[in-house]
Amino acid sequence: MTLNSVTEDFIAHLRGVLPEAAFREVMPSYLEEPRGRWKGRAGVLIAPGSTEEVATLVRACAEASVPVVPYGGGTGLVGGQLSPEGPVPVLLSLERMRAVRGVWPEENVMVVEAGAILQDIHAEADAVDRLFPLSLAAKGSARIGGNLATNAGGVNVLRYGNARDLCLGLEAVLPDGTIWHGLKRLRKDNTGYDLRNLLIGSEGTLGVITAAALKLFPKPAGEGTALMVVESPEAALSLLSMARDHMGEGVSAFELMHRAGLDFLAETMPDMRLPFAEPPEWFVLIDIGLAKGLDPAEALEALFVEAAEAGLVSDGMIAQSEAQRQAFWEVRETIPEANRRIGSISSHDISLPLSAVPGFIDKGNAALRELGPFRINCFGHLGDGNLHYNVFPPKGETRDGYTGQRDAIKRLVHDLVHDMDGSVSAEHGIGRLKVDDLERYGDPAKLAAMRAIKAALDPKGILNPGAILKVLPDRQ
Amino acid sequence: MTLNSVTEDFIAHLRGVLPEAAFREVMPSYLEEPRGRWKGRAGVLIAPGSTEEVATLVRACAEASVPVVPYGGGTGLVGGQLSPEGPVPVLLSLERMRAVRGVWPEENVMVVEAGAILQDIHAEADAVDRLFPLSLAAKGSARIGGNLATNAGGVNVLRYGNARDLCLGLEAVLPDGTIWHGLKRLRKDNTGYDLRNLLIGSEGTLGVITAAALKLFPKPAGEGTALMVVESPEAALSLLSMARDHMGEGVSAFELMHRAGLDFLAETMPDMRLPFAEPPEWFVLIDIGLAKGLDPAEALEALFVEAAEAGLVSDGMIAQSEAQRQAFWEVRETIPEANRRIGSISSHDISLPLSAVPGFIDKGNAALRELGPFRINCFGHLGDGNLHYNVFPPKGETRDGYTGQRDAIKRLVHDLVHDMDGSVSAEHGIGRLKVDDLERYGDPAKLAAMRAIKAALDPKGILNPGAILKVLPDRQ
Repeated sequence: MTLNSVTEDFIAHLRGVLPEAAFREVMPSYLEEPRGRWKGRAGVLIAPGSTEEVATLVRACAEASVPVVPYGGGTGLVGGQLSPEGPVPVLLSLERMRAVRGVWPEENVMVVEAGAILQDIHAEADAVDRLFPLSLAAKGSARIGGNLATNAGGVNVLRYGNARDLCLGLEAVLPDGTIWHGLKRLRKDNTGYDLRNLLIGSEGTLGVITAAALKLFPKPAGEGTALMVVESPEAALSLLSMARDHMGEGVSAFELMHRAGLDFLAETMPDMRLPFAEPPEWFVLIDIGLAKGLDPAEALEALFVEAAEAGLVSDGMIAQSEAQRQAFWEVRETIPEANRRIGSISSHDISLPLSAVPGFIDKGNAALRELGPFRINCFGHLGDGNLHYNVFPPKGETRDGYTGQRDAIKRLVHDLVHDMDGSVSAEHGIGRLKVDDLERYGDPAKLAAMRAIKAALDPKGILNPGAILKVLPDRQ
Repeated sequence: MTLNSVTEDFIAHLRGVLPEAAFREVMPSYLEEPRGRWKGRAGVLIAPGSTEEVATLVRACAEASVPVVPYGGGTGLVGGQLSPEGPVPVLLSLERMRAVRGVWPEENVMVVEAGAILQDIHAEADAVDRLFPLSLAAKGSARIGGNLATNAGGVNVLRYGNARDLCLGLEAVLPDGTIWHGLKRLRKDNTGYDLRNLLIGSEGTLGVITAAALKLFPKPAGEGTALMVVESPEAALSLLSMARDHMGEGVSAFELMHRAGLDFLAETMPDMRLPFAEPPEWFVLIDIGLAKGLDPAEALEALFVEAAEAGLVSDGMIAQSEAQRQAFWEVRETIPEANRRIGSISSHDISLPLSAVPGFIDKGNAALRELGPFRINCFGHLGDGNLHYNVFPPKGETRDGYTGQRDAIKRLVHDLVHDMDGSVSAEHGIGRLKVDDLERYGDPAKLAAMRAIKAALDPKGILNPGAILKVLPDRQ
């Protein structure tokens, strides 16, 4: 069974079954991805206006054995949203399906279509005095369907979980074009296999998510943010533990940053105001949201005092206004853009058992020093054991002279992560970037089960071929 | 492809590949289930001492096409743990695999084997000043493997989630006898399809869970419990909303109870001390756990005052000691036993969108009144929209005279739940009791996907045949 490229005849057929409005021009932006590693191809770009139209399209592709690459906001970092090789696919964009289908503030539930932009969902929740906590740097363009398909993480996982944990129900088009109506607004539903979580994180290879029932939360009564200078990643972990003793689930985010991040900001965005006169080696951003009766600034102050007495922190700032909170967050959220401007040789989205994090940083840094004069920007969601451990050329040089070392760097980092029982993809997914890593490090029994599931649900292999799993030779 | 009953020859073969200690006597208790609906059968009872022995057993069964029924604590309420018909199976008990493989208090993680009893896990967590929050009435005999296989719920789902939400990683034996080593201690891991959540809730039909990495939590600094008399289920929902405004995630449990529960306790356990002199129509148990700096009794008092002013509550008691907290909880946790002693005609473990709960109770009660002079005990986890809506004979009669109406009652309740976008199995699962309900109410696309997954992972259909999905005719 082989897949077929989109042909003029096939497009003509689609024009017969889908409305004109669904056909869009393939702008170059649809064929690019944020890290510029690959160029995609698309025989046609289709943006259906309804779930039924998605089903019509997928059914037509299944009948003609034409590949379909689902496309959300295009912000994925592992190439899951584009097809650089193999038969030329239909690009299926959810951009026209952005409706909020319903909001139930008293149930803390919102039902939205897959093309809704994450930031717009934040605003919709805010309008009914609720919080939708999934948040990440690309929130202004990422779409919820893509967030769910990749099980996005971000800065609030510590308290609220990842995309998977924030979804109660899904509507999706399965690979044969049938519609699964699974938009339940239920907190408990033990009626059979967990198809919802199987589709979440399957990166468009098992179904096309068209809508989701999302969990909302009451807003914390008071919020606060602090930057604290820590002696080491180990001290940061002790500080996290102390913060949770003080505030329980009140700790919403706990982000570790390294001086390299501040250096990169200074080098690439010299106008940006940085919070420290003297850049510290390591520091953390702590964000808290507390119930009635507790003052966030006081709670952060008490934490700082106790942490200073214990020798964990040497300096710190507690935001005194909403503007200052934003400014602290801006440092954290602008670091990925600074990284892009510097240009990494190899980036790693890894996770480790929490207690293994300091040892990993020590060993990884030491091993990379042997390999070359690299700069390392290690930062991320320490509370989740999730580091973005990114390797850059020496100051003043570009990565062009170092791309030959990319594979060796990646191998070194991922081998170490694997040896320490970690994951080589914490929150970005596998996409096309890490297919070989999954083959190398994945559990063989799990991989066999994944292949069996893919073959069972998508026997022709039309949905996002080449993402997550290698395309079988007889389909190439 | 048909399945074969266990034969003497097959047992002899197993004795050649498994140690003597794994073979146990089939005591009658293994063939019973708490509601006494079915009698199981077992050709042999095997309790392996290790994951490798589980794998050896499953491989042997797969080769001989002999069915395997995994058995945990035997406390399941839908008959998933026993086989009343079809080829006689191997009963695979996890009771000898109870080890705690590791505890990492600083990571809030514990790794335990599947046969560990839930209450023992609570004690292990307590010993390192941590909380494992999954809790249910059968905690003294339920085993964690069964809790995970059925995605158990219980009283703390509101705050901490169900079994699925409390599991970071699994080790399991798949239907071909291979071992999936998935015991990750990671908070984030986006490396491929979510096999963990597919096995959780699959009720032993896709794999045998042998060990799990569980999430622990810091204990709340202070805990409190109150009983409050509410005017109606609607008032209870408003009270819940008010409680969450006051205390955010601090609300750990919010249990609705009806006077019928108190009546049943008085009738079946006359020595038990009940909390109300005058039994109220509706009341709730609220359990809270707060961070440092907040006094639980004060917080409950403040909530009561505001709720009384709003006309939501008319009476209440706040526990003044740990003993009183236990006494309040005992009322809630003894109601299932009182129900068993009265003997329900039909029991329903249902969930609804939160805002649909009051309407459901009104409509359900009215429709049942048309059908007969039944007593209804409606209670449960209101915070999750999960009701145990159980129908009993009139006072002084047994269910024997009413079993002919069982199907009509169940149909009436489940039709109404389905019409109101609810679930006919909120937390107990499908087992063998609700296979027909799943066929009737399940989404066809989801059912087709489930069947495809089952056939792909367990092509011979050896694992727990007849649970969740009907056995295909050619396997009967």
